Amino acid sequence: MKLSTEKKFARRMDGVPRSFIREILKVAISPNIISFAGGLPNKDFFPLEELQACAIKLMSGSDRNILQYANTEGYLPLREKIADRYLQKGLSVKPNNILITNGSQQGLDLLGKIFINEGDGVLMEEPGYLGAIQAFSIFKPQFMTVPLQKNGIDIELFKTKVANSNPKFAYLIPNFQNPSGISYEESVRKEISDFCRDKSLFLVEDDPYGDIRFKGQAKHSFYHYLPEQTIMLGTFSKTVVPAFRMGWIVAPDDVMEKLVIAKQAADLHTDYFTQRLVHQYLSDYNIDEHIAKIQTTYGKQANAMLDAIGKHFPEGVTHTIPEGGMFLWVTLPEGQEALTAFDMAIKENVAFVPGNPFYVDKTNVNTFRLNFSCSNEAEIEEGIRRLGNVLKRLK
Amino acid sequence: MKLSTEKKFARRMDGVPRSFIREILKVAISPNIISFAGGLPNKDFFPLEELQACAIKLMSGSDRNILQYANTEGYLPLREKIADRYLQKGLSVKPNNILITNGSQQGLDLLGKIFINEGDGVLMEEPGYLGAIQAFSIFKPQFMTVPLQKNGIDIELFKTKVANSNPKFAYLIPNFQNPSGISYEESVRKEISDFCRDKSLFLVEDDPYGDIRFKGQAKHSFYHYLPEQTIMLGTFSKTVVPAFRMGWIVAPDDVMEKLVIAKQAADLHTDYFTQRLVHQYLSDYNIDEHIAKIQTTYGKQANAMLDAIGKHFPEGVTHTIPEGGMFLWVTLPEGQEALTAFDMAIKENVAFVPGNPFYVDKTNVNTFRLNFSCSNEAEIEEGIRRLGNVLKRLK
Repeated sequence: MKLSTEKKFARRMDGVPRSFIREILKVAISPNIISFAGGLPNKDFFPLEELQACAIKLMSGSDRNILQYANTEGYLPLREKIADRYLQKGLSVKPNNILITNGSQQGLDLLGKIFINEGDGVLMEEPGYLGAIQAFSIFKPQFMTVPLQKNGIDIELFKTKVANSNPKFAYLIPNFQNPSGISYEESVRKEISDFCRDKSLFLVEDDPYGDIRFKGQAKHSFYHYLPEQTIMLGTFSKTVVPAFRMGWIVAPDDVMEKLVIAKQAADLHTDYFTQRLVHQYLSDYNIDEHIAKIQTTYGKQANAMLDAIGKHFPEGVTHTIPEGGMFLWVTLPEGQEALTAFDMAIKENVAFVPGNPFYVDKTNVNTFRLNFSCSNEAEIEEGIRRLGNVLKRLK
Repeated sequence: MKLSTEKKFARRMDGVPRSFIREILKVAISPNIISFAGGLPNKDFFPLEELQACAIKLMSGSDRNILQYANTEGYLPLREKIADRYLQKGLSVKPNNILITNGSQQGLDLLGKIFINEGDGVLMEEPGYLGAIQAFSIFKPQFMTVPLQKNGIDIELFKTKVANSNPKFAYLIPNFQNPSGISYEESVRKEISDFCRDKSLFLVEDDPYGDIRFKGQAKHSFYHYLPEQTIMLGTFSKTVVPAFRMGWIVAPDDVMEKLVIAKQAADLHTDYFTQRLVHQYLSDYNIDEHIAKIQTTYGKQANAMLDAIGKHFPEGVTHTIPEGGMFLWVTLPEGQEALTAFDMAIKENVAFVPGNPFYVDKTNVNTFRLNFSCSNEAEIEEGIRRLGNVLKRLK
């Protein structure tokens, strides 16, 4: 079969590149490298022994249905546990409005599928989560971006873009955003919600890191202010383990109906055995105590990184100060390029993610992401020292 | 937000209904019902104790990376085991050409995504697998259907439709097809492959049941005749357990590249822990011995169903004689309706799936699917007796 690639594949795949991070990190294979490039949670906190106990318990019964096909929406008692956790935060969510997905990444794919016609507007934060850019890109939206500021998204620009371009939804990560580490102040959340109330768009609130707050006060979800127009994405990847790909979507009834149809066509249901395993874990252990340990450690690691940056980065380099999550965001002086810094850094055995893949339409950017969840305090000090030396030499 | 459904959702969701089977089986909830409607493997064969031993072993090590994020393609040693199993069947497949998916259902979604532009031709068997109809429908193809005959797809019609309409791919289940139980004779496989060699289409060969052959000789895959144009879908759902959603796609390099991009956008990767668990199971146990037990039992159950049909069904009702898999297909006399029979059957506490959802463009059909993998021989005799009484009364 001789057929040009253009004719062979669907047009929706044209603009979707291989993962930038994956490609760029192929060079970062030295065993001595200190990597701030990953987006991985710290595996020291994976409750391996507890999950083993849960697996033994679950598989010691005679119920072979734990290994059978299951319903598309997900294991109801697990969805009830998720609803209970929302209630702890003051949010009333019905289990029937929760769909279990393969990590929140699948939530993004399903939302793209049910909402986006080619050319439909999708409002994104700038910088934005690259997994969302990838997932939505396949459905060929018209992206519109609104810059993040210190206290959250730029409200005036948000209002202008919504009013002028009528996007289907705005995709927002109000807590410890990936990649920037920025959180939305309460007033920003309220004002965005109030503004959207009579507009025809959804707020898609992705909250993978919300539980990992190590500083400051928890803020309200958009769902608190505007439940009927807020779609929430959640995941156990950062609080239990990522391997299971266990996430969920909370959506209003009519959206849920479309999501269930799309999920059924996509893969029938999420791994039922690991749904049961996570449910067992949530039943037998105190996840809040577990999360508290993660918060403490990530908080120390974030502080170590901030301290080291203060010591080693040259003047003119600015950065965010996260209150939780796994990332902070560095901005180089105007005219410097993060990709150039990356090439130099790799030679010094330190890695990060240049800002490029977090923009819909920019290249040669002067920003980059640092992850602090996967390195201990000594590694952070040494890695930031190496990186500081690179940035001092950068032109 | 007041917004009409048409404006709110993407057009691709318009034609995709809620699952027919799910809706119709809502009425089939009596505890006394004998159901031949399911598509479930027999849970008696789920290797619960073996998988528990694997889980304990896997989680007794100190390697917390079994719970971490993993690569998109899937766990390499698992892909090597899958390649080894193909080699046993005489097929040379490189592990790098295997992508682990969430069941073969996700393979269908990914293939739809990377191949189908709105209006592109997709050739389907008639009757066809409803999960594929659902998955592809979302991408708005032009379906063209070719009837199945006793020995496989209608070759002449296949050739005419391919020549006239140039489909992107033909989706075929040559072994014990779902829903019909029909298998393609060797000569049909060869002739289809020979015909397609200089045409610009892929053969998508879905083979969930191929291992469950209880009669006759194994036949060659299309991949044997035409490897560069055959995409194979496989799954452990029918040989190990369905709950894990563990399937795979085998595809040429350029297709694999697009699939990996689409998979990454869809959910990053398939549950890594259960990938490791399946790999452990394949390493520590003899899956061929396990499959042999399934073959024997399903064969007995199929025979029991064929015997009971011979005894209880009225003249004029015809059916297929499967050599493997989980289903057989019944055709009522012209003018009778499977849906009417279904309504009557439910009242007699016996269920099956009316043929309707297995057709792209037909309603009021006179065909239905019977599953024999989930009922024991006594239930099969009694259920078919009840069904025979219904069919005798049917007009």
